[in-house]
Amino acid sequence: MSSAMPALQLYFSPGACSFVPHLLLERLGLPFEAHIVKLHKGEQFSDAFKAMNPLSQVPVLLLDGHPVTQIMAIVDALDGLAPQAQLFPAEGLARARAWQQLAWMNGTIHPQFTRFFRPSAFAETEAAQAEVKASGQRAFMKSLVRLDEMAALEPEEGGAARASFLGGASEPGPADAYAMVLMRWGTLMGADGDTLPHLWGLARRVALSPAGERAMARERIELSAKPAA
Amino acid sequence: MSSAMPALQLYFSPGACSFVPHLLLERLGLPFEAHIVKLHKGEQFSDAFKAMNPLSQVPVLLLDGHPVTQIMAIVDALDGLAPQAQLFPAEGLARARAWQQLAWMNGTIHPQFTRFFRPSAFAETEAAQAEVKASGQRAFMKSLVRLDEMAALEPEEGGAARASFLGGASEPGPADAYAMVLMRWGTLMGADGDTLPHLWGLARRVALSPAGERAMARERIELSAKPAA
Repeated sequence: MSSAMPALQLYFSPGACSFVPHLLLERLGLPFEAHIVKLHKGEQFSDAFKAMNPLSQVPVLLLDGHPVTQIMAIVDALDGLAPQAQLFPAEGLARARAWQQLAWMNGTIHPQFTRFFRPSAFAETEAAQAEVKASGQRAFMKSLVRLDEMAALEPEEGGAARASFLGGASEPGPADAYAMVLMRWGTLMGADGDTLPHLWGLARRVALSPAGERAMARERIELSAKPAA
Repeated sequence: MSSAMPALQLYFSPGACSFVPHLLLERLGLPFEAHIVKLHKGEQFSDAFKAMNPLSQVPVLLLDGHPVTQIMAIVDALDGLAPQAQLFPAEGLARARAWQQLAWMNGTIHPQFTRFFRPSAFAETEAAQAEVKASGQRAFMKSLVRLDEMAALEPEEGGAARASFLGGASEPGPADAYAMVLMRWGTLMGADGDTLPHLWGLARRVALSPAGERAMARERIELSAKPAA
Protein backbone atom coordinates (compact mmCIF):
# COMPACT_ATOMS: atom_id res chain seq x y z
CA MET A 1 0.00 0.00 0.00
CA SER A 2 1.49 3.23 -1.11
CA SER A 3 -0.55 5.63 0.96
CA ALA A 4 -0.32 6.24 4.71
CA MET A 5 -0.14 3.21 7.00
CA PRO A 6 -3.71 2.14 7.80
CA ALA A 7 -4.80 1.69 11.41
CA LEU A 8 -4.45 -2.03 12.18
CA GLN A 9 -6.51 -4.19 14.50
CA LEU A 10 -6.10 -7.95 14.87
CA TYR A 11 -8.73 -10.32 16.22
CA PHE A 12 -7.06 -13.50 17.44
CA SER A 13 -7.77 -16.56 19.55
CA PRO A 14 -4.99 -18.01 21.73
CA GLY A 15 -3.10 -20.76 19.93
CA ALA A 16 -5.24 -20.58 16.78
CA CYS A 17 -3.76 -19.98 13.33
CA SER A 18 -4.27 -16.28 14.04
CA PHE A 19 -0.88 -16.62 15.73
CA VAL A 20 0.66 -16.32 12.24
CA PRO A 21 -0.36 -12.69 11.60
CA HIS A 22 0.02 -11.96 15.33
CA LEU A 23 3.70 -12.92 15.26
CA LEU A 24 4.25 -11.12 11.96
CA LEU A 25 2.77 -7.88 13.26
CA GLU A 26 5.18 -8.08 16.20
CA ARG A 27 8.10 -8.89 13.93
CA LEU A 28 7.33 -6.04 11.55
CA GLY A 29 6.96 -3.61 14.44
CA LEU A 30 3.69 -2.30 13.06
CA PRO A 31 1.47 -0.62 15.64
CA PHE A 32 -1.76 -2.57 16.09
CA GLU A 33 -4.60 -3.13 18.53
CA ALA A 34 -5.01 -6.74 19.61
CA HIS A 35 -8.43 -8.16 20.45
CA ILE A 36 -8.88 -11.59 21.96
CA VAL A 37 -11.81 -13.69 20.71
CA LYS A 38 -12.79 -16.42 23.19
CA LEU A 39 -13.87 -19.26 20.93
CA HIS A 40 -14.82 -21.48 23.89
CA LYS A 41 -17.29 -18.79 24.93
CA GLY A 42 -18.70 -18.58 21.39
CA GLU A 43 -17.70 -14.94 20.93
CA GLN A 44 -17.09 -15.65 17.23
CA PHE A 45 -20.85 -16.11 16.82
CA SER A 46 -21.77 -12.67 18.16
CA ASP A 47 -23.47 -10.28 15.75
CA ALA A 48 -20.55 -7.89 16.09
CA PHE A 49 -18.01 -10.52 15.09
CA LYS A 50 -20.13 -11.94 12.30
CA ALA A 51 -20.43 -8.46 10.84
CA MET A 52 -16.65 -8.64 10.35
CA ASN A 53 -16.51 -12.31 9.35
CA PRO A 54 -19.75 -14.16 8.60
CA LEU A 55 -17.75 -17.40 8.75
CA SER A 56 -17.08 -16.81 12.49
CA GLN A 57 -13.37 -17.52 12.16
CA VAL A 58 -10.20 -15.83 13.37
CA PRO A 59 -8.02 -14.15 12.30
CA VAL A 60 -9.61 -10.92 11.22
CA LEU A 61 -7.36 -7.98 10.38
CA LEU A 62 -8.99 -4.57 10.23
CA LEU A 63 -7.38 -2.13 7.81
CA ASP A 64 -8.72 1.29 8.79
CA GLY A 65 -11.80 -0.55 10.05
CA HIS A 66 -12.27 -2.73 6.97
CA PRO A 67 -12.12 -6.46 7.77
CA VAL A 68 -9.81 -8.80 5.90
CA THR A 69 -10.04 -12.52 6.60
CA GLN A 70 -8.10 -15.61 5.46
CA ILE A 71 -4.47 -16.12 6.50
CA MET A 72 -3.19 -16.00 2.93
CA ALA A 73 -4.83 -12.63 2.27
CA ILE A 74 -3.73 -11.17 5.60
CA VAL A 75 -0.12 -12.27 5.14
CA ASP A 76 -0.07 -10.82 1.64
CA ALA A 77 -1.47 -7.56 3.00
CA LEU A 78 1.22 -7.42 5.71
CA ASP A 79 3.83 -8.09 3.05
CA GLY A 80 2.47 -5.10 1.14
CA LEU A 81 2.58 -2.89 4.24
CA ALA A 82 6.22 -3.70 4.99
CA PRO A 83 7.89 -4.76 1.74
CA GLN A 84 11.34 -4.01 3.16
CA ALA A 85 10.95 -6.96 5.56
CA GLN A 86 10.72 -9.37 2.62
CA LEU A 87 8.27 -11.79 4.17
CA PHE A 88 8.30 -13.44 0.76
CA PRO A 89 10.96 -13.56 -1.91
CA ALA A 90 10.14 -10.86 -4.45
CA GLU A 91 9.77 -13.07 -7.52
CA GLY A 92 10.50 -16.21 -9.42
CA LEU A 93 10.70 -19.79 -8.25
CA ALA A 94 11.71 -18.86 -4.69
CA ARG A 95 8.56 -16.79 -4.29
CA ALA A 96 6.36 -19.50 -5.79
CA ARG A 97 7.81 -22.13 -3.47
CA ALA A 98 7.28 -19.92 -0.42
CA TRP A 99 3.60 -19.41 -1.34
CA GLN A 100 3.31 -23.13 -2.06
CA GLN A 101 4.62 -23.99 1.41
CA LEU A 102 2.22 -21.63 3.14
CA ALA A 103 -0.76 -22.69 1.01
CA TRP A 104 -0.06 -26.34 1.82
CA MET A 105 -0.01 -25.68 5.54
CA ASN A 106 -3.11 -23.49 5.42
CA GLY A 107 -5.20 -25.44 2.91
CA THR A 108 -4.18 -29.05 3.62
CA ILE A 109 -2.54 -29.60 7.00
CA HIS A 110 -4.73 -27.20 8.95
CA PRO A 111 -8.00 -28.87 7.77
CA GLN A 112 -6.53 -32.27 8.71
CA PHE A 113 -6.28 -31.01 12.28
CA THR A 114 -9.85 -29.72 12.14
CA ARG A 115 -11.03 -33.31 11.58
CA PHE A 116 -9.28 -34.29 14.82
CA PHE A 117 -10.28 -31.20 16.77
CA ARG A 118 -13.89 -30.74 15.70
CA PRO A 119 -15.18 -34.00 14.17
CA SER A 120 -18.74 -32.91 14.87
CA ALA A 121 -18.45 -30.66 11.81
CA PHE A 122 -18.02 -33.74 9.63
CA ALA A 123 -20.45 -36.36 10.96
CA GLU A 124 -23.39 -36.69 13.35
CA THR A 125 -23.15 -39.99 15.17
CA GLU A 126 -20.50 -40.62 17.78
CA ALA A 127 -19.20 -43.66 15.92
CA ALA A 128 -18.72 -41.75 12.67
CA GLN A 129 -17.11 -38.82 14.50
CA ALA A 130 -14.62 -41.22 16.07
CA GLU A 131 -13.62 -42.43 12.60
CA VAL A 132 -13.26 -38.89 11.29
CA LYS A 133 -11.15 -37.96 14.30
CA ALA A 134 -8.85 -40.96 13.91
CA SER A 135 -8.33 -40.46 10.16
CA GLY A 136 -7.70 -36.76 10.73
CA GLN A 137 -5.08 -37.55 13.34
CA ARG A 138 -3.32 -40.02 11.02
CA ALA A 139 -3.30 -37.54 8.14
CA PHE A 140 -2.15 -34.66 10.34
CA MET A 141 0.70 -36.65 11.91
CA LYS A 142 1.84 -37.78 8.46
CA SER A 143 2.02 -34.14 7.42
CA LEU A 144 3.97 -33.20 10.54
CA VAL A 145 6.50 -35.93 9.71
CA ARG A 146 6.85 -34.34 6.29
CA LEU A 147 7.35 -30.92 7.87
CA ASP A 148 9.94 -32.46 10.19
CA GLU A 149 11.84 -33.82 7.19
CA MET A 150 11.77 -30.39 5.58
CA ALA A 151 12.98 -28.75 8.78
CA ALA A 152 15.89 -31.24 8.87
CA LEU A 153 17.35 -29.95 5.61
CA GLU A 154 20.20 -27.54 5.79
CA PRO A 155 19.23 -24.20 4.22
CA GLU A 156 21.31 -24.85 1.13
CA GLU A 157 19.78 -28.32 0.71
CA GLY A 158 16.24 -27.09 1.26
CA GLY A 159 16.77 -24.38 -1.25
CA ALA A 160 13.75 -22.53 -2.53
CA ALA A 161 11.45 -25.18 -1.05
CA ARG A 162 11.92 -23.68 2.38
CA ALA A 163 12.71 -20.11 1.48
CA SER A 164 10.50 -18.81 4.24
CA PHE A 165 11.58 -21.29 6.92
CA LEU A 166 14.01 -20.05 9.52
CA GLY A 167 16.93 -21.72 7.76
CA GLY A 168 19.28 -18.91 7.14
CA ALA A 169 16.88 -16.18 8.19
CA SER A 170 17.37 -14.42 11.50
CA GLU A 171 13.68 -13.78 12.15
CA PRO A 172 10.67 -16.05 11.72
CA GLY A 173 8.57 -15.74 8.56
CA PRO A 174 4.98 -16.74 7.76
CA ALA A 175 5.79 -20.44 7.24
CA ASP A 176 7.88 -20.56 10.41
CA ALA A 177 5.02 -19.16 12.44
CA TYR A 178 2.53 -21.59 10.88
CA ALA A 179 4.91 -24.51 11.49
CA MET A 180 5.02 -23.58 15.17
CA VAL A 181 1.23 -23.49 15.38
CA LEU A 182 0.99 -26.93 13.74
CA MET A 183 3.74 -28.42 15.93
CA ARG A 184 1.97 -27.06 19.00
CA TRP A 185 -1.32 -28.64 17.91
CA GLY A 186 0.60 -31.87 17.43
CA THR A 187 1.45 -31.93 21.13
CA LEU A 188 -2.26 -32.64 21.73
CA MET A 189 -1.62 -35.96 19.95
CA GLY A 190 1.55 -36.71 21.88
CA ALA A 191 4.06 -35.33 19.38
CA ASP A 192 7.10 -33.73 20.98
CA GLY A 193 10.79 -33.06 20.61
CA ASP A 194 11.57 -36.77 20.67
CA THR A 195 9.19 -37.74 17.87
CA LEU A 196 9.68 -34.65 15.66
CA PRO A 197 13.08 -33.25 16.64
CA HIS A 198 13.63 -30.95 13.67
CA LEU A 199 10.14 -29.47 13.61
CA TRP A 200 10.28 -29.07 17.39
CA GLY A 201 13.61 -27.29 17.07
CA LEU A 202 12.15 -24.95 14.48
CA ALA A 203 9.11 -24.27 16.67
CA ARG A 204 11.41 -23.52 19.63
CA ARG A 205 13.35 -21.00 17.57
CA VAL A 206 10.07 -19.30 16.68
CA ALA A 207 8.97 -19.31 20.33
CA LEU A 208 12.29 -17.87 21.50
CA SER A 209 12.46 -15.12 18.87
CA PRO A 210 11.61 -11.66 20.20
CA ALA A 211 8.45 -11.44 18.09
CA GLY A 212 7.46 -14.98 19.08
CA GLU A 213 7.94 -14.26 22.75
CA ARG A 214 5.81 -11.13 22.61
CA ALA A 215 2.98 -12.79 20.69
CA MET A 216 3.00 -15.90 22.92
CA ALA A 217 2.98 -13.76 26.05
CA ARG A 218 -0.08 -11.87 24.83
CA GLU A 219 -1.81 -15.14 23.88
CA ARG A 220 -0.66 -16.74 27.16
CA ILE A 221 0.39 -19.94 25.40
CA GLU A 222 3.33 -22.31 25.77
CA LEU A 223 4.92 -24.35 23.04
CA SER A 224 3.21 -27.44 24.38
CA ALA A 225 -0.57 -27.28 24.21
CA LYS A 226 -0.94 -30.23 26.60
CA PRO A 227 -2.48 -29.31 29.93
CA ALA A 228 0.01 -29.78 32.75
CA ALA A 229 -0.34 -33.23 34.34
CA MET B 1 9.72 -12.41 -12.76
CA SER B 2 11.96 -9.93 -14.34
CA SER B 3 14.14 -12.23 -16.39
CA ALA B 4 13.17 -14.07 -19.56
CA MET B 5 9.83 -15.86 -19.63
CA PRO B 6 10.35 -19.39 -18.29
CA ALA B 7 9.17 -22.39 -20.29
CA LEU B 8 5.75 -23.31 -18.90
CA GLN B 9 4.10 -26.73 -18.61
CA LEU B 10 0.78 -27.38 -16.92
CA TYR B 11 -0.39 -30.73 -15.58
CA PHE B 12 -4.17 -30.74 -15.32
CA SER B 13 -7.06 -33.12 -14.89
CA PRO B 14 -10.36 -32.43 -16.70
CA GLY B 15 -12.78 -30.49 -14.52
CA ALA B 16 -10.44 -30.38 -11.51
CA CYS B 17 -9.37 -27.13 -9.86
CA SER B 18 -6.44 -27.16 -12.29
CA PHE B 19 -8.95 -25.48 -14.61
CA VAL B 20 -8.13 -22.23 -12.79
CA PRO B 21 -4.50 -21.92 -13.98
CA HIS B 22 -5.49 -23.57 -17.27
CA LEU B 23 -7.96 -20.80 -18.06
CA LEU B 24 -5.56 -18.11 -16.85
CA LEU B 25 -2.74 -19.37 -19.09
CA GLU B 26 -5.15 -19.14 -22.03
CA ARG B 27 -6.32 -15.69 -20.98
CA LEU B 28 -2.79 -14.38 -20.58
CA GLY B 29 -1.76 -15.80 -23.95
CA LEU B 30 1.36 -17.37 -22.44
CA PRO B 31 2.80 -20.25 -24.45
CA PHE B 32 2.57 -23.50 -22.47
CA GLU B 33 2.55 -27.24 -22.89
CA ALA B 34 -0.55 -28.92 -21.50
CA HIS B 35 -0.39 -32.44 -20.04
CA ILE B 36 -3.47 -34.35 -19.03
CA VAL B 37 -3.32 -36.42 -15.84
CA LYS B 38 -5.96 -39.15 -15.75
CA LEU B 39 -6.88 -39.34 -12.09
CA HIS B 40 -9.31 -42.25 -12.65
CA LYS B 41 -6.39 -44.25 -14.00
CA GLY B 42 -4.24 -43.33 -11.00
CA GLU B 43 -1.63 -41.50 -13.09
CA GLN B 44 -1.10 -39.07 -10.18
CA PHE B 45 0.45 -41.95 -8.23
CA SER B 46 3.14 -42.72 -10.80
CA ASP B 47 6.74 -42.22 -9.75
CA ALA B 48 7.17 -39.59 -12.44
CA PHE B 49 4.24 -37.56 -11.18
CA LYS B 50 5.14 -37.95 -7.52
CA ALA B 51 8.62 -36.66 -8.32
CA MET B 52 6.87 -33.41 -9.25
CA ASN B 53 4.26 -33.48 -6.51
CA PRO B 54 4.58 -36.03 -3.69
CA LEU B 55 0.99 -35.17 -2.72
CA SER B 56 -0.25 -36.63 -6.06
CA GLN B 57 -2.45 -33.64 -6.81
CA VAL B 58 -3.05 -31.44 -9.83
CA PRO B 59 -2.33 -28.74 -10.81
CA VAL B 60 1.43 -28.74 -11.24
CA LEU B 61 3.01 -25.87 -13.12
CA LEU B 62 6.57 -26.38 -14.33
CA LEU B 63 8.67 -23.21 -14.51
CA ASP B 64 11.67 -24.13 -16.65
CA GLY B 65 11.19 -27.68 -15.42
CA HIS B 66 10.81 -26.77 -11.72
CA PRO B 67 7.48 -27.87 -10.27
CA VAL B 68 5.20 -25.46 -8.44
CA THR B 69 2.06 -26.80 -6.78
CA GLN B 70 -0.90 -25.25 -4.94
CA ILE B 71 -3.39 -23.04 -6.77
CA MET B 72 -2.57 -20.00 -4.66
CA ALA B 73 1.13 -20.24 -5.48
CA ILE B 74 0.55 -20.92 -9.17
CA VAL B 75 -1.86 -18.02 -9.54
CA ASP B 76 0.59 -15.70 -7.78
CA ALA B 77 3.34 -16.90 -10.12
CA LEU B 78 1.18 -16.26 -13.20
CA ASP B 79 0.42 -12.79 -11.84
CA GLY B 80 4.16 -12.22 -11.61
CA LEU B 81 4.71 -13.41 -15.19
CA ALA B 82 2.07 -11.08 -16.64
CA PRO B 83 1.66 -8.14 -14.28
CA GLN B 84 0.12 -6.03 -17.03
CA ALA B 85 -2.96 -8.29 -16.98
CA GLN B 86 -3.67 -7.31 -13.36
CA LEU B 87 -5.05 -10.65 -12.24
CA PHE B 88 -5.11 -9.03 -8.81
CA PRO B 89 -5.47 -5.41 -7.78
CA ALA B 90 -1.97 -4.08 -7.13
CA GLU B 91 -2.41 -3.09 -3.50
CA GLY B 92 -4.54 -2.10 -0.59
CA LEU B 93 -7.95 -3.34 0.49
CA ALA B 94 -9.01 -4.34 -3.01
CA ARG B 95 -6.03 -6.66 -3.32
CA ALA B 96 -6.60 -8.14 0.15
CA ARG B 97 -10.25 -8.83 -0.63
CA ALA B 98 -9.39 -10.52 -3.92
CA TRP B 99 -6.92 -12.85 -2.20
CA GLN B 100 -9.46 -13.43 0.57
CA GLN B 101 -12.06 -14.52 -1.97
CA LEU B 102 -9.69 -16.94 -3.68
CA ALA B 103 -8.35 -18.33 -0.40
CA TRP B 104 -11.90 -18.98 0.79
CA MET B 105 -12.78 -20.91 -2.34
CA ASN B 106 -9.51 -22.87 -2.31
CA GLY B 107 -9.15 -23.52 1.41
CA THR B 108 -12.77 -23.86 2.55
CA ILE B 109 -15.27 -24.56 -0.25
CA HIS B 110 -13.05 -26.93 -2.21
CA PRO B 111 -12.40 -29.22 0.83
CA GLN B 112 -16.15 -29.28 1.51
CA PHE B 113 -16.61 -30.83 -1.93
CA THR B 114 -13.83 -33.33 -1.22
CA ARG B 115 -15.93 -34.70 1.67
CA PHE B 116 -18.77 -35.34 -0.81
CA PHE B 117 -16.56 -36.61 -3.63
CA ARG B 118 -14.07 -38.78 -1.73
CA PRO B 119 -15.50 -39.61 1.71
CA SER B 120 -13.21 -42.64 1.91
CA ALA B 121 -10.40 -40.21 2.78
CA PHE B 122 -12.27 -39.27 5.97
CA ALA B 123 -13.70 -42.51 7.36
CA GLU B 124 -13.49 -46.26 6.90
CA THR B 125 -16.92 -47.78 7.36
CA GLU B 126 -19.67 -47.26 4.79
CA ALA B 127 -21.98 -45.80 7.39
CA ALA B 128 -19.48 -43.18 8.52
CA GLN B 129 -18.58 -42.34 4.92
CA ALA B 130 -22.26 -41.72 4.19
CA GLU B 131 -22.38 -39.22 7.05
CA VAL B 132 -19.24 -37.46 5.87
CA LYS B 133 -20.61 -37.28 2.35
CA ALA B 134 -23.96 -35.85 3.48
CA SER B 135 -22.40 -33.23 5.74
CA GLY B 136 -19.95 -32.28 3.01
CA GLN B 137 -22.79 -31.81 0.54
CA ARG B 138 -24.72 -29.61 2.98
CA ALA B 139 -21.67 -27.45 3.71
CA PHE B 140 -20.73 -27.18 0.02
CA MET B 141 -24.25 -26.19 -1.08
CA LYS B 142 -24.41 -23.58 1.67
CA SER B 143 -21.17 -22.09 0.32
CA LEU B 144 -22.53 -22.10 -3.24
CA VAL B 145 -25.58 -20.17 -2.03
CA ARG B 146 -23.20 -17.62 -0.53
CA LEU B 147 -21.30 -17.41 -3.81
CA ASP B 148 -24.62 -16.98 -5.63
CA GLU B 149 -25.48 -14.03 -3.38
CA MET B 150 -22.09 -12.48 -4.10
CA ALA B 151 -22.54 -12.99 -7.83
CA ALA B 152 -25.92 -11.23 -7.58
CA LEU B 153 -24.36 -7.96 -6.46
CA GLU B 154 -23.85 -5.26 -8.98
CA PRO B 155 -20.14 -4.45 -9.35
CA GLU B 156 -20.52 -1.17 -7.51
CA GLU B 157 -22.41 -2.86 -4.65
CA GLY B 158 -19.94 -5.72 -4.39
CA GLY B 159 -17.08 -3.30 -4.35
CA ALA B 160 -13.72 -4.58 -3.33
CA ALA B 161 -15.27 -7.78 -2.03
CA ARG B 162 -15.59 -9.07 -5.56
CA ALA B 163 -12.78 -7.25 -7.26
CA SER B 164 -11.72 -10.34 -9.14
CA PHE B 165 -15.21 -11.49 -10.14
CA LEU B 166 -16.34 -10.77 -13.65
CA GLY B 167 -18.42 -7.81 -12.52
CA GLY B 168 -17.03 -4.98 -14.52
CA ALA B 169 -14.12 -6.95 -15.94
CA SER B 170 -14.18 -8.06 -19.55
CA GLU B 171 -12.17 -11.25 -19.02
CA PRO B 172 -12.40 -13.88 -16.29
CA GLY B 173 -10.00 -13.71 -13.37
CA PRO B 174 -8.82 -16.33 -10.87
CA ALA B 175 -11.94 -16.16 -8.70
CA ASP B 176 -14.22 -16.31 -11.74
CA ALA B 177 -12.52 -19.45 -12.96
CA TYR B 178 -12.71 -21.05 -9.51
CA ALA B 179 -16.38 -20.09 -9.21
CA MET B 180 -17.07 -21.90 -12.49
CA VAL B 181 -15.29 -25.03 -11.25
CA LEU B 182 -17.31 -25.00 -8.03
CA MET B 183 -20.62 -24.35 -9.83
CA ARG B 184 -19.84 -27.22 -12.19
CA TRP B 185 -19.14 -29.55 -9.26
CA GLY B 186 -22.46 -28.41 -7.79
CA THR B 187 -24.29 -29.84 -10.81
CA LEU B 188 -23.34 -33.28 -9.46
CA MET B 189 -25.62 -32.44 -6.50
CA GLY B 190 -28.43 -31.17 -8.68
CA ALA B 191 -27.57 -27.45 -8.56
CA ASP B 192 -28.34 -25.60 -11.79
CA GLY B 193 -29.39 -22.30 -13.29
CA ASP B 194 -32.75 -22.48 -11.51
CA THR B 195 -31.35 -22.99 -8.02
CA LEU B 196 -28.28 -20.71 -8.32
CA PRO B 197 -29.14 -18.27 -11.11
CA HIS B 198 -26.44 -15.69 -10.43
CA LEU B 199 -23.60 -18.13 -9.92
CA TRP B 200 -24.76 -20.07 -12.96
CA GLY B 201 -24.78 -16.87 -15.01
CA LEU B 202 -21.26 -16.10 -13.87
CA ALA B 203 -20.12 -19.62 -14.72
CA ARG B 204 -21.69 -19.30 -18.17
CA ARG B 205 -19.82 -16.06 -18.81
CA VAL B 206 -16.59 -17.82 -17.89
CA ALA B 207 -17.45 -20.76 -20.15
CA LEU B 208 -18.30 -18.48 -23.05
CA SER B 209 -15.21 -16.30 -22.75
CA PRO B 210 -12.52 -17.00 -25.37
CA ALA B 211 -10.07 -18.30 -22.75
CA GLY B 212 -12.79 -20.38 -21.09
CA GLU B 213 -13.84 -21.90 -24.41
CA ARG B 214 -10.28 -22.91 -25.27
CA ALA B 215 -9.56 -24.42 -21.87
CA MET B 216 -12.88 -26.29 -21.75
CA ALA B 217 -12.33 -27.64 -25.26
CA ARG B 218 -8.93 -28.98 -24.27
CA GLU B 219 -10.36 -30.52 -21.09
CA ARG B 220 -13.43 -31.78 -23.02
CA ILE B 221 -15.81 -30.62 -20.33
CA GLU B 222 -19.22 -28.96 -20.36
CA LEU B 223 -20.59 -26.55 -17.79
CA SER B 224 -22.75 -29.35 -16.39
CA ALA B 225 -20.78 -32.25 -14.95
CA LYS B 226 -23.86 -34.48 -14.86
CA PRO B 227 -23.66 -37.42 -17.23
CA ALA B 228 -26.27 -37.13 -19.98
CA ALA B 229 -29.46 -38.97 -19.04
